[in-house]
Amino acid sequence: MTDLIDRRSFAAMGLAGSAALLSNDAQGEPKAARAGNREGKKTHITIMLYPGTTMLDWVGPYEALHRVEGVELVLAGKTTEWMKSDSGLVDYKANVAFDAIDRTDVLIVPGGAQGVMAAANDPSTADWLRRLDRTSIYTVGICTGSLLLAHLGLLKGKRATTYWKFPHMLNGAGATFVPERWVRDGKYWTSAGVSAGIDATLALIADLYGSKCAMMAQLAIEYDPHPPFNAGSVRTAPADVVEALGGVLAQRRQ
Amino acid sequence: MTDLIDRRSFAAMGLAGSAALLSNDAQGEPKAARAGNREGKKTHITIMLYPGTTMLDWVGPYEALHRVEGVELVLAGKTTEWMKSDSGLVDYKANVAFDAIDRTDVLIVPGGAQGVMAAANDPSTADWLRRLDRTSIYTVGICTGSLLLAHLGLLKGKRATTYWKFPHMLNGAGATFVPERWVRDGKYWTSAGVSAGIDATLALIADLYGSKCAMMAQLAIEYDPHPPFNAGSVRTAPADVVEALGGVLAQRRQ
Repeated sequence: MTDLIDRRSFAAMGLAGSAALLSNDAQGEPKAARAGNREGKKTHITIMLYPGTTMLDWVGPYEALHRVEGVELVLAGKTTEWMKSDSGLVDYKANVAFDAIDRTDVLIVPGGAQGVMAAANDPSTADWLRRLDRTSIYTVGICTGSLLLAHLGLLKGKRATTYWKFPHMLNGAGATFVPERWVRDGKYWTSAGVSAGIDATLALIADLYGSKCAMMAQLAIEYDPHPPFNAGSVRTAPADVVEALGGVLAQRRQ
Repeated sequence: MTDLIDRRSFAAMGLAGSAALLSNDAQGEPKAARAGNREGKKTHITIMLYPGTTMLDWVGPYEALHRVEGVELVLAGKTTEWMKSDSGLVDYKANVAFDAIDRTDVLIVPGGAQGVMAAANDPSTADWLRRLDRTSIYTVGICTGSLLLAHLGLLKGKRATTYWKFPHMLNGAGATFVPERWVRDGKYWTSAGVSAGIDATLALIADLYGSKCAMMAQLAIEYDPHPPFNAGSVRTAPADVVEALGGVLAQRRQ
């Protein structure tokens, strides 16, 4: 083993431990050229977990954010008991209970199916979300996480996006659906479905700590996407693919 | 709540439960036009978990695969005790212990940093991997998961890829590093770093169940990537970004 996978190579890998921390200051360039809003400051980021999340909705943002120097990332849940993903296949848990967090700089809300409904219908969860949102610099809804923010009235009058099947649900809550990969309106960031959280998070990192830091996070997760098909959007997928997923074809004209 | 996030909308969402299962047969088109190798057959897919995985390495593939009709997906670990991700932030566990699985159609090995080393150095884990690999139609290494396969001698004489920092480690194990997003050589599939597992998995789904099924999985996770920077590859990232991550700039000329 030692000649193939040795400790020194992995220490240099930038995938774990302190070597993973990315800093915009690494090259000693003038800060002005690439400054983010939180340059030199710690940023407390809370990913809200609940039973029934779509894993990639939060693992995408997590995978980029935990590598960024200055980011203090926590996974918060109603309890720290084990939860199951929307598929029932993955077990995960929060690091810390909602009650132990009364403020955060950035609040990230992932999506899910039945799980989003349950979270939205749980008064103590909704109260905690509203409370944390009042303290945040940014609140971020990924996929149907945006619908949860909309349900709380937080996106009223805002441009926002969500999973491609639910523009009407955002609009019905007083937001204006925008068919973009991610949207920022004031302090609210929202992303399209599931994998879109990765793109939105890189934009968020650029805002917080500058574009060089975001590019370092992107290279650290080797995010150079080359999907074998151009079918990831309702606007590019073949009509029979959209239909097979129960999509509203009218959306393709947006 | 009921008018904003209602059960019927979510049942139609294709994000959880039986509604999520994607089948190439949905439109009743001639199978020949889009047949995969496993058309009409179940495919048992095992994602190998160990302590210290890079979450996105396996959550990307999982998120696409669990939606595919015919795929029987399990997460296997040495035990079903809780494990921590490479960052120490995420707790997860396997559905089933290695000992309970003696064959699989597709074996997927995600990467990690110290965790890959520990898994490679654990004789019972290495034995199980070799045993499962002998039964598989395909064995897939994501990111540094490829190095684990290489360490077992499985990639000798094969074209393969891995995380951008480690071409020498693949080559040193008798494989030939290829700077592509994913590579297939015989029954071995390997992908570039972390996020590349999503692309490789969509190609795998197309091989198993046809391109329409893969496109449905892609649309289900709205994988229409628009990273805000073109910095996800050592061949496209600015030199100072590569240097800051400790990259070998010579790789850029490959």
